Amino acid sequence: MASIFTKIINNEIPSYKIAEDENYIAILDAFPLVKGHVLVIPKKEVDKIFDLDMETYKGLMEFAYKIAKSIEKSIPCLRVGMAAVGLEVPHVHVHLVPLNTMNDINFTQPKLKLSDDEMNEIAEKIKSQL
Amino acid sequence: MASIFTKIINNEIPSYKIAEDENYIAILDAFPLVKGHVLVIPKKEVDKIFDLDMETYKGLMEFAYKIAKSIEKSIPCLRVGMAAVGLEVPHVHVHLVPLNTMNDINFTQPKLKLSDDEMNEIAEKIKSQL
Repeated sequence: MASIFTKIINNEIPSYKIAEDENYIAILDAFPLVKGHVLVIPKKEVDKIFDLDMETYKGLMEFAYKIAKSIEKSIPCLRVGMAAVGLEVPHVHVHLVPLNTMNDINFTQPKLKLSDDEMNEIAEKIKSQL
Repeated sequence: MASIFTKIINNEIPSYKIAEDENYIAILDAFPLVKGHVLVIPKKEVDKIFDLDMETYKGLMEFAYKIAKSIEKSIPCLRVGMAAVGLEVPHVHVHLVPLNTMNDINFTQPKLKLSDDEMNEIAEKIKSQL
């Protein structure tokens, strides 16, 4: 069965899209740790990040770098953190999280509940800095 | 002043070294979240990961990939997670953490205290799979 991210990539499930190219997509995390929490995802459906072929992996990291720069410019933070955990969805995704404290990238924390308007506003802010 | 990682790279401070090449070094984290927690560090002293030049950044990620594969083969875990946070030491470092639960990569957790023998044993295990 297709992963939730493949369904998002195929536009079968809506998302707040930040950027997309032939091989990768960046969307707002639907369950954000903080405002501006983004996921960067390869279109190729692979479970574990270190099982990606090296070309796809390095391309993903380059894509993430560019998105991180846009987050840094648009969301107030000390820096942007990055994490690949992947224990929940079996499709590689890299978290980009604007950090002000160490706890901002603690995945055991309760997630924010943001309105559709807030999510659209955050997405537009980040996209304006791409 | 040189960062603690630059001092480790220059052998002014001891470390449990896993791998090293011209541009990068991998060492056991001295304050591990779990056994097999490794740091991958560029020799170039830059504070924020997304301020690295693209070549150094992609090289770092490629180096991390290889180390992660060795951790996966040597330390019992569901997968290896990756994180760049960097709020404590102003010199880029990527955490590679063998994961069994989400909490294994929660940086607000208390750190393990391992003996010199345990650290050496873990380092040797990972190195044997390089």
